[in-house]
Amino acid sequence: MALIGILGGMGPLATVDFMAKVVQLTDASCDQQHLPMLVANLPHVADRSRAILGDGEDCLDGLLEGIDLLNRNGVGLVTIPCNSAHHWYAQMLARSDAPVLHIADACVAAVPDSVRRVAVLGTGGTLVSGFYQAALAARGIEPVVPDAEMQQEIAACIHEVKAGALKHAAGHLALVLDKLAAQDVRVAVMGCTEIPLAARHLPDSPLALIDSSLELARATVSFAVARGWNRPQ
Amino acid sequence: MALIGILGGMGPLATVDFMAKVVQLTDASCDQQHLPMLVANLPHVADRSRAILGDGEDCLDGLLEGIDLLNRNGVGLVTIPCNSAHHWYAQMLARSDAPVLHIADACVAAVPDSVRRVAVLGTGGTLVSGFYQAALAARGIEPVVPDAEMQQEIAACIHEVKAGALKHAAGHLALVLDKLAAQDVRVAVMGCTEIPLAARHLPDSPLALIDSSLELARATVSFAVARGWNRPQ
Repeated sequence: MALIGILGGMGPLATVDFMAKVVQLTDASCDQQHLPMLVANLPHVADRSRAILGDGEDCLDGLLEGIDLLNRNGVGLVTIPCNSAHHWYAQMLARSDAPVLHIADACVAAVPDSVRRVAVLGTGGTLVSGFYQAALAARGIEPVVPDAEMQQEIAACIHEVKAGALKHAAGHLALVLDKLAAQDVRVAVMGCTEIPLAARHLPDSPLALIDSSLELARATVSFAVARGWNRPQ
Repeated sequence: MALIGILGGMGPLATVDFMAKVVQLTDASCDQQHLPMLVANLPHVADRSRAILGDGEDCLDGLLEGIDLLNRNGVGLVTIPCNSAHHWYAQMLARSDAPVLHIADACVAAVPDSVRRVAVLGTGGTLVSGFYQAALAARGIEPVVPDAEMQQEIAACIHEVKAGALKHAAGHLALVLDKLAAQDVRVAVMGCTEIPLAARHLPDSPLALIDSSLELARATVSFAVARGWNRPQ
Protein backbone atom coordinates (compact mmCIF):
# COMPACT_ATOMS: atom_id res chain seq x y z
CA MET A 1 0.00 0.00 0.00
CA ALA A 2 1.29 3.46 -0.91
CA LEU A 3 1.70 5.83 2.01
CA ILE A 4 2.25 9.57 2.23
CA GLY A 5 5.34 10.05 4.39
CA ILE A 6 5.29 13.17 6.55
CA LEU A 7 8.49 14.33 8.23
CA GLY A 8 6.99 16.42 10.98
CA GLY A 9 7.17 17.64 14.54
CA MET A 10 8.84 20.87 13.44
CA GLY A 11 6.75 22.06 15.16
CA PRO A 12 4.21 19.51 16.30
CA LEU A 13 1.15 21.79 16.13
CA ALA A 14 2.09 22.78 12.56
CA THR A 15 2.24 19.08 11.68
CA VAL A 16 -1.21 18.48 13.15
CA ASP A 17 -2.49 21.49 11.17
CA PHE A 18 -0.92 20.15 7.96
CA MET A 19 -2.50 16.72 8.49
CA ALA A 20 -5.89 18.33 9.12
CA LYS A 21 -5.55 20.16 5.80
CA VAL A 22 -4.71 16.92 3.96
CA VAL A 23 -7.75 15.23 5.50
CA GLN A 24 -10.06 18.17 4.76
CA LEU A 25 -8.83 18.49 1.15
CA THR A 26 -9.52 14.80 0.47
CA ASP A 27 -12.90 14.08 -1.07
CA ALA A 28 -14.17 11.27 1.16
CA SER A 29 -17.42 10.17 2.73
CA CYS A 30 -15.97 7.35 4.86
CA ASP A 31 -12.62 6.41 6.41
CA GLN A 32 -11.73 4.08 3.54
CA GLN A 33 -11.75 6.92 0.99
CA HIS A 34 -9.12 8.90 2.91
CA LEU A 35 -5.36 8.90 2.28
CA PRO A 36 -2.95 6.71 4.26
CA MET A 37 -0.06 8.55 5.93
CA LEU A 38 2.95 7.66 7.99
CA VAL A 39 3.89 10.59 10.19
CA ALA A 40 7.29 10.82 11.83
CA ASN A 41 6.64 13.57 14.37
CA LEU A 42 10.19 14.26 15.55
CA PRO A 43 10.26 17.47 17.60
CA HIS A 44 13.78 16.82 18.91
CA VAL A 45 15.47 17.58 15.61
CA ALA A 46 17.69 20.57 16.43
CA ASP A 47 16.31 24.04 15.66
CA ARG A 48 16.56 24.51 11.89
CA SER A 49 16.64 28.31 11.87
CA ARG A 50 19.45 28.49 14.43
CA ALA A 51 21.43 25.87 12.51
CA ILE A 52 21.18 27.96 9.32
CA LEU A 53 22.25 31.06 11.22
CA GLY A 54 25.26 29.21 12.70
CA ASP A 55 23.82 29.77 16.15
CA GLY A 56 22.98 26.20 17.18
CA GLU A 57 23.76 22.55 16.68
CA ASP A 58 23.54 20.94 13.28
CA CYS A 59 20.17 19.42 12.41
CA LEU A 60 20.93 17.60 9.16
CA ASP A 61 21.55 14.24 10.85
CA GLY A 62 18.15 14.48 12.54
CA LEU A 63 16.42 15.34 9.28
CA LEU A 64 18.11 12.46 7.45
CA GLU A 65 17.14 10.02 10.24
CA GLY A 66 13.54 11.02 9.62
CA ILE A 67 13.94 10.59 5.85
CA ASP A 68 15.42 7.14 6.46
CA LEU A 69 12.61 6.13 8.84
CA LEU A 70 9.96 7.04 6.29
CA ASN A 71 11.76 5.30 3.42
CA ARG A 72 12.40 2.14 5.45
CA ASN A 73 8.63 1.88 5.73
CA GLY A 74 8.08 2.19 2.00
CA VAL A 75 6.44 5.59 1.72
CA GLY A 76 5.70 6.69 -1.84
CA LEU A 77 6.14 10.39 -1.19
CA VAL A 78 7.81 12.58 1.43
CA THR A 79 6.40 15.93 2.53
CA ILE A 80 7.95 18.16 5.18
CA PRO A 81 5.66 20.75 6.82
CA CYS A 82 8.62 22.84 8.03
CA ASN A 83 9.93 25.55 5.73
CA SER A 84 13.33 26.09 7.37
CA ALA A 85 14.14 22.39 6.93
CA HIS A 86 14.04 22.99 3.16
CA HIS A 87 17.45 24.68 3.47
CA TRP A 88 18.66 21.05 3.28
CA TYR A 89 16.21 20.03 0.53
CA ALA A 90 18.94 18.78 -1.84
CA GLN A 91 20.48 16.54 0.83
CA MET A 92 17.09 15.12 1.85
CA LEU A 93 16.09 14.52 -1.76
CA ALA A 94 19.39 12.75 -2.46
CA ARG A 95 18.86 10.52 0.56
CA SER A 96 15.21 9.61 -0.19
CA ASP A 97 14.03 6.81 -2.47
CA ALA A 98 10.60 8.47 -2.55
CA PRO A 99 10.10 11.84 -4.23
CA VAL A 100 10.12 14.86 -1.90
CA LEU A 101 7.79 17.82 -2.49
CA HIS A 102 9.28 21.30 -1.97
CA ILE A 103 7.08 23.49 0.21
CA ALA A 104 8.32 26.80 -1.27
CA ASP A 105 7.71 25.63 -4.84
CA ALA A 106 4.15 24.69 -3.91
CA CYS A 107 3.63 27.99 -2.08
CA VAL A 108 5.13 30.34 -4.66
CA ALA A 109 3.16 28.59 -7.43
CA ALA A 110 0.01 29.79 -5.65
CA VAL A 111 0.90 33.50 -6.00
CA PRO A 112 -1.45 34.97 -8.64
CA ASP A 113 0.23 36.07 -11.90
CA SER A 114 -0.85 39.69 -11.41
CA VAL A 115 1.12 40.10 -8.16
CA ARG A 116 4.51 41.80 -8.55
CA ARG A 117 5.69 42.21 -4.90
CA VAL A 118 5.37 39.63 -2.15
CA ALA A 119 6.57 39.79 1.45
CA VAL A 120 8.26 36.68 2.81
CA LEU A 121 7.28 35.79 6.38
CA GLY A 122 9.52 33.06 7.77
CA THR A 123 12.19 32.24 10.31
CA GLY A 124 15.45 34.17 10.27
CA GLY A 125 17.06 31.00 8.94
CA THR A 126 14.63 30.68 6.03
CA LEU A 127 15.27 34.30 5.03
CA VAL A 128 19.06 33.88 5.19
CA SER A 129 18.80 30.63 3.23
CA GLY A 130 16.98 32.62 0.56
CA PHE A 131 15.01 29.90 -1.21
CA TYR A 132 11.76 31.89 -1.08
CA GLN A 133 13.42 34.96 -2.54
CA ALA A 134 14.89 32.78 -5.30
CA ALA A 135 11.58 31.06 -6.09
CA LEU A 136 9.77 34.42 -6.25
CA ALA A 137 12.50 36.01 -8.38
CA ALA A 138 12.32 33.05 -10.76
CA ARG A 139 8.71 34.08 -11.40
CA GLY A 140 9.70 37.73 -11.84
CA ILE A 141 8.17 38.68 -8.48
CA GLU A 142 9.99 41.09 -6.16
CA PRO A 143 10.50 39.54 -2.71
CA VAL A 144 10.05 41.94 0.22
CA VAL A 145 12.06 40.88 3.25
CA PRO A 146 10.87 42.33 6.60
CA ASP A 147 13.32 44.67 8.34
CA ALA A 148 15.04 43.64 11.59
CA GLU A 149 12.31 45.09 13.80
CA MET A 150 9.55 43.26 11.95
CA GLN A 151 11.62 40.08 11.92
CA GLN A 152 11.80 40.16 15.72
CA GLU A 153 8.00 40.19 15.82
CA ILE A 154 7.82 37.29 13.34
CA ALA A 155 10.27 35.29 15.46
CA ALA A 156 8.14 36.00 18.53
CA CYS A 157 5.01 34.92 16.64
CA ILE A 158 6.61 31.59 15.67
CA HIS A 159 7.92 31.03 19.19
CA GLU A 160 4.48 31.62 20.74
CA VAL A 161 2.84 29.10 18.38
CA LYS A 162 5.42 26.46 19.32
CA ALA A 163 4.55 27.15 22.96
CA GLY A 164 0.80 26.89 22.23
CA ALA A 165 -0.01 30.58 22.77
CA LEU A 166 -1.86 31.26 19.51
CA LYS A 167 -3.52 34.55 20.46
CA HIS A 168 -0.24 36.09 21.62
CA ALA A 169 1.27 34.86 18.37
CA ALA A 170 -1.44 36.62 16.38
CA GLY A 171 -0.68 39.89 18.15
CA HIS A 172 2.94 39.81 16.97
CA LEU A 173 1.86 38.91 13.43
CA ALA A 174 -0.67 41.76 13.29
CA LEU A 175 2.05 44.35 14.01
CA VAL A 176 4.10 43.10 11.07
CA LEU A 177 1.17 43.00 8.67
CA ASP A 178 0.26 46.59 9.54
CA LYS A 179 3.83 47.76 8.84
CA LEU A 180 3.97 45.90 5.53
CA ALA A 181 0.62 47.38 4.51
CA ALA A 182 2.01 50.85 5.29
CA GLN A 183 4.81 50.04 2.81
CA ASP A 184 2.17 49.29 0.20
CA VAL A 185 2.78 45.54 0.25
CA ARG A 186 -0.47 43.71 -0.54
CA VAL A 187 0.49 39.99 -0.50
CA ALA A 188 2.66 37.88 1.81
CA VAL A 189 3.65 34.24 1.80
CA MET A 190 3.45 32.57 5.20
CA GLY A 191 6.73 30.75 4.68
CA CYS A 192 6.76 29.15 8.11
CA THR A 193 4.13 26.54 9.01
CA GLU A 194 3.55 28.03 12.46
CA ILE A 195 2.37 31.37 11.06
CA PRO A 196 -0.98 30.14 9.62
CA LEU A 197 -1.93 28.93 13.11
CA ALA A 198 -1.44 32.48 14.38
CA ALA A 199 -3.17 34.03 11.34
CA ARG A 200 -6.35 32.13 12.17
CA HIS A 201 -6.63 34.27 15.29
CA LEU A 202 -6.42 37.60 13.42
CA PRO A 203 -9.76 39.41 13.21
CA ASP A 204 -8.77 40.37 9.65
CA SER A 205 -5.61 40.92 7.62
CA PRO A 206 -4.58 44.02 5.63
CA LEU A 207 -2.60 41.69 3.28
CA ALA A 208 -3.63 38.64 1.29
CA LEU A 209 -1.82 35.72 2.95
CA ILE A 210 -0.64 32.66 1.03
CA ASP A 211 -0.29 29.64 3.30
CA SER A 212 2.72 27.36 2.61
CA SER A 213 1.21 24.57 4.69
CA LEU A 214 -2.09 24.66 2.78
CA GLU A 215 -0.31 24.74 -0.59
CA LEU A 216 1.90 21.80 0.41
CA ALA A 217 -1.23 19.93 1.52
CA ARG A 218 -2.87 20.65 -1.86
CA ALA A 219 0.19 19.36 -3.71
CA THR A 220 0.30 16.30 -1.47
CA VAL A 221 -3.35 15.40 -1.99
CA SER A 222 -3.04 15.95 -5.78
CA PHE A 223 0.00 13.67 -5.95
CA ALA A 224 -1.61 10.91 -3.93
CA VAL A 225 -5.09 11.04 -5.45
CA ALA A 226 -3.61 11.02 -8.99
CA ARG A 227 -2.03 7.69 -8.04
CA GLY A 228 -5.21 6.28 -6.48
CA TRP A 229 -3.81 6.03 -2.95
CA ASN A 230 -7.24 6.96 -1.60
CA ARG A 231 -8.86 3.98 -3.35
CA PRO A 232 -6.44 1.04 -3.07
CA GLN A 233 -7.29 -2.12 -5.02
CA MET B 1 14.77 7.49 21.14
CA ALA B 2 11.43 6.47 22.61
CA LEU B 3 8.44 7.17 20.41
CA ILE B 4 4.70 7.20 21.07
CA GLY B 5 3.14 4.89 18.49
CA ILE B 6 -0.31 5.91 17.29
CA LEU B 7 -2.42 3.46 15.32
CA GLY B 8 -4.75 5.90 13.63
CA GLY B 9 -6.74 6.84 10.57
CA MET B 10 -9.90 5.40 12.09
CA GLY B 11 -11.00 7.98 11.27
CA PRO B 12 -8.33 10.40 10.10
CA LEU B 13 -9.87 13.56 11.55
CA ALA B 14 -10.20 11.85 14.94
CA THR B 15 -6.50 10.97 14.75
CA VAL B 16 -5.59 14.59 14.00
CA ASP B 17 -7.77 15.68 16.93
CA PHE B 18 -6.08 13.15 19.22
CA MET B 19 -2.61 14.35 18.18
CA ALA B 20 -3.63 17.96 18.78
CA LYS B 21 -4.71 16.99 22.30
CA VAL B 22 -1.36 15.27 22.97
CA VAL B 23 0.51 18.37 21.77
CA GLN B 24 -1.68 20.76 23.77
CA LEU B 25 -1.41 18.66 26.96
CA THR B 26 2.39 18.65 26.76
CA ASP B 27 4.08 21.38 28.77
CA ALA B 28 6.52 22.81 26.22
CA SER B 29 7.84 26.19 25.18
CA CYS B 30 9.78 25.00 22.10
CA ASP B 31 9.69 22.09 19.65
CA GLN B 32 12.38 20.17 21.51
CA GLN B 33 10.23 19.89 24.68
CA HIS B 34 7.41 18.14 22.81
CA LEU B 35 6.82 14.39 22.55
CA PRO B 36 7.99 12.32 19.57
CA MET B 37 5.30 10.26 17.86
CA LEU B 38 5.10 7.81 15.00
CA VAL B 39 1.62 7.87 13.52
CA ALA B 40 0.36 5.10 11.27
CA ASN B 41 -2.70 6.78 9.78
CA LEU B 42 -4.33 3.79 8.05
CA PRO B 43 -7.86 4.69 6.97
CA HIS B 44 -8.21 1.59 4.78
CA VAL B 45 -8.54 -0.80 7.71
CA ALA B 46 -12.01 -2.32 7.23
CA ASP B 47 -14.88 -0.75 9.18
CA ARG B 48 -14.51 -1.91 12.80
CA SER B 49 -18.16 -1.50 13.80
CA ARG B 50 -19.46 -3.47 10.82
CA ALA B 51 -16.91 -6.23 11.46
CA ILE B 52 -18.11 -6.55 15.08
CA LEU B 53 -21.73 -6.67 13.88
CA GLY B 54 -20.88 -9.39 11.31
CA ASP B 55 -21.91 -7.01 8.54
CA GLY B 56 -18.58 -6.42 6.80
CA GLU B 57 -15.14 -7.78 6.16
CA ASP B 58 -12.79 -8.69 8.95
CA CYS B 59 -10.48 -5.91 10.13
CA LEU B 60 -8.17 -7.73 12.52
CA ASP B 61 -5.45 -8.33 9.90
CA GLY B 62 -5.42 -4.61 9.13
CA LEU B 63 -5.16 -3.70 12.81
CA LEU B 64 -2.32 -6.17 13.38
CA GLU B 65 -0.42 -4.84 10.35
CA GLY B 66 -0.56 -1.44 12.00
CA ILE B 67 0.63 -2.86 15.33
CA ASP B 68 3.50 -4.58 13.50
CA LEU B 69 4.49 -1.40 11.63
CA LEU B 70 4.70 0.58 14.88
CA ASN B 71 6.66 -2.12 16.69
CA ARG B 72 9.09 -2.62 13.79
CA ASN B 73 10.01 1.03 14.31
CA GLY B 74 10.66 0.60 18.01
CA VAL B 75 7.79 2.54 19.56
CA GLY B 76 7.71 2.43 23.35
CA LEU B 77 3.91 2.68 23.63
CA VAL B 78 0.91 2.07 21.39
CA THR B 79 -2.25 4.15 21.57
CA ILE B 80 -5.27 3.68 19.32
CA PRO B 81 -7.67 6.64 18.99
CA CYS B 82 -10.52 4.42 17.74
CA ASN B 83 -12.83 2.92 20.33
CA SER B 84 -14.38 0.18 18.17
CA ALA B 85 -10.91 -1.22 17.41
CA HIS B 86 -10.63 -2.04 21.11
CA HIS B 87 -12.97 -4.99 20.52
CA TRP B 88 -9.69 -6.67 19.45
CA TYR B 89 -7.63 -5.21 22.31
CA ALA B 90 -6.45 -8.60 23.59
CA GLN B 91 -5.20 -9.64 20.15
CA MET B 92 -3.41 -6.33 19.57
CA LEU B 93 -1.83 -6.42 23.03
CA ALA B 94 -0.64 -10.00 22.47
CA ARG B 95 0.93 -8.97 19.16
CA SER B 96 2.68 -5.82 20.45
CA ASP B 97 6.09 -5.67 22.09
CA ALA B 98 5.19 -2.21 23.38
CA PRO B 99 2.45 -1.72 25.98
CA VAL B 100 -0.96 -0.72 24.59
CA LEU B 101 -3.19 1.75 26.45
CA HIS B 102 -6.93 0.90 26.56
CA ILE B 103 -9.08 3.88 25.59
CA ALA B 104 -12.15 2.75 27.58
CA ASP B 105 -10.12 2.21 30.75
CA ALA B 106 -8.73 5.75 30.43
CA CYS B 107 -12.19 7.17 29.70
CA VAL B 108 -14.14 5.37 32.42
CA ALA B 109 -11.46 6.28 34.99
CA ALA B 110 -12.39 9.92 34.35
CA VAL B 111 -16.03 9.48 35.47
CA PRO B 112 -16.39 11.21 38.85
CA ASP B 113 -17.04 8.90 41.81
CA SER B 114 -20.38 10.52 42.55
CA VAL B 115 -21.89 9.58 39.20
CA ARG B 116 -24.09 6.44 39.26
CA ARG B 117 -25.54 6.33 35.69
CA VAL B 118 -23.63 7.04 32.48
CA ALA B 119 -24.83 6.86 28.88
CA VAL B 120 -22.50 5.19 26.39
CA LEU B 121 -22.25 6.97 23.03
CA GLY B 122 -20.40 4.84 20.51
CA THR B 123 -20.70 2.86 17.31
CA GLY B 124 -23.16 -0.02 17.13
CA GLY B 125 -20.15 -2.32 17.18
CA THR B 126 -18.72 -0.82 20.36
CA LEU B 127 -22.07 -1.20 22.11
CA VAL B 128 -22.45 -4.85 21.01
CA SER B 129 -18.85 -5.54 22.02
CA GLY B 130 -19.82 -4.26 25.47
CA PHE B 131 -16.44 -3.20 26.83
CA TYR B 132 -17.72 0.20 27.98
CA GLN B 133 -20.65 -1.37 29.81
CA ALA B 134 -18.23 -3.81 31.48
CA ALA B 135 -15.77 -1.07 32.49
CA LEU B 136 -18.58 1.05 33.95
CA ALA B 137 -20.16 -1.91 35.76
CA ALA B 138 -16.75 -2.77 37.25
CA ARG B 139 -16.90 0.66 38.94
CA GLY B 140 -20.47 0.07 40.09
CA ILE B 141 -21.85 2.56 37.54
CA GLU B 142 -25.04 1.75 35.60
CA PRO B 143 -24.41 1.99 31.83
CA VAL B 144 -27.28 3.50 29.83
CA VAL B 145 -27.34 2.24 26.24
CA PRO B 146 -29.24 4.46 23.75
CA ASP B 147 -32.35 2.90 22.20
CA ALA B 148 -32.42 1.98 18.48
CA GLU B 149 -33.77 5.37 17.42
CA MET B 150 -31.07 7.28 19.28
CA GLN B 151 -28.42 4.88 18.01
CA GLN B 152 -29.40 5.72 14.43
CA GLU B 153 -28.71 9.37 15.20
CA ILE B 154 -25.34 8.52 16.79
CA ALA B 155 -24.39 6.47 13.72
CA ALA B 156 -25.35 9.42 11.50
CA CYS B 157 -23.28 11.76 13.69
CA ILE B 158 -20.20 9.54 13.36
CA HIS B 159 -20.71 9.14 9.61
CA GLU B 160 -20.95 12.92 9.11
CA VAL B 161 -17.69 13.53 11.01
CA LYS B 162 -15.89 10.96 8.85
CA ALA B 163 -17.20 12.86 5.80
CA GLY B 164 -16.04 16.19 7.27
CA ALA B 165 -19.54 17.62 7.93
CA LEU B 166 -19.09 18.60 11.57
CA LYS B 167 -22.12 20.87 11.93
CA HIS B 168 -24.49 18.26 10.52
CA ALA B 169 -22.88 15.78 12.89
CA ALA B 170 -23.58 18.08 15.84
CA GLY B 171 -27.26 18.24 14.89
CA HIS B 172 -27.61 14.47 15.17
CA LEU B 173 -25.74 14.44 18.47
CA ALA B 174 -27.95 17.20 19.93
CA LEU B 175 -31.11 15.13 19.33
CA VAL B 176 -29.65 12.22 21.30
CA LEU B 177 -28.45 14.36 24.18
CA ASP B 178 -31.89 15.94 24.53
CA LYS B 179 -33.53 12.51 24.68
CA LEU B 180 -31.05 11.25 27.25
CA ALA B 181 -31.58 14.38 29.35
CA ALA B 182 -35.33 13.71 29.23
CA GLN B 183 -34.56 10.28 30.72
CA ASP B 184 -32.74 12.00 33.56
CA VAL B 185 -29.29 10.94 32.36
CA ARG B 186 -26.75 13.59 33.36
CA VAL B 187 -23.41 12.17 32.11
CA ALA B 188 -22.32 10.44 28.92
CA VAL B 189 -19.05 9.01 27.73
CA MET B 190 -18.16 9.89 24.14
CA GLY B 191 -16.96 6.36 23.40
CA CYS B 192 -16.18 7.05 19.75
CA THR B 193 -13.38 9.45 18.82
CA GLU B 194 -15.47 11.13 16.11
CA ILE B 195 -18.12 12.33 18.58
CA PRO B 196 -15.96 14.97 20.35
CA LEU B 197 -15.41 16.65 16.97
CA ALA B 198 -19.18 16.98 16.62
CA ALA B 199 -19.66 18.03 20.25
CA ARG B 200 -17.39 21.04 19.69
CA HIS B 201 -20.09 22.43 17.40
CA LEU B 202 -22.89 22.17 19.99
CA PRO B 203 -23.91 25.55 21.44
CA ASP B 204 -24.21 23.76 24.79
CA SER B 205 -24.90 20.28 26.11
CA PRO B 206 -27.59 19.19 28.58
CA LEU B 207 -25.25 16.37 29.72
CA ALA B 208 -21.68 16.41 31.01
CA LEU B 209 -19.63 14.74 28.27
CA ILE B 210 -16.49 12.70 28.99
CA ASP B 211 -14.19 12.55 25.97
CA SER B 212 -12.47 9.20 25.35
CA SER B 213 -9.97 10.83 22.99
CA LEU B 214 -8.98 13.48 25.54
CA GLU B 215 -8.66 10.90 28.33
CA LEU B 216 -6.49 8.66 26.11
CA ALA B 217 -4.34 11.70 25.28
CA ARG B 218 -3.96 12.46 29.01
CA ALA B 219 -2.92 8.87 29.72
CA THR B 220 -0.51 8.96 26.77
CA VAL B 221 1.17 12.19 27.84
CA SER B 222 1.44 10.97 31.46
CA PHE B 223 3.05 7.70 30.34
CA ALA B 224 5.55 9.42 28.06
CA VAL B 225 6.45 12.35 30.32
CA ALA B 226 6.96 10.00 33.29
CA ARG B 227 9.62 8.29 31.16
CA GLY B 228 11.24 11.56 30.03
CA TRP B 229 10.42 11.12 26.34
CA ASN B 230 9.92 14.90 26.08
CA ARG B 231 13.46 15.57 27.31
CA PRO B 232 15.71 12.95 25.72
CA GLN B 233 19.34 12.81 26.91
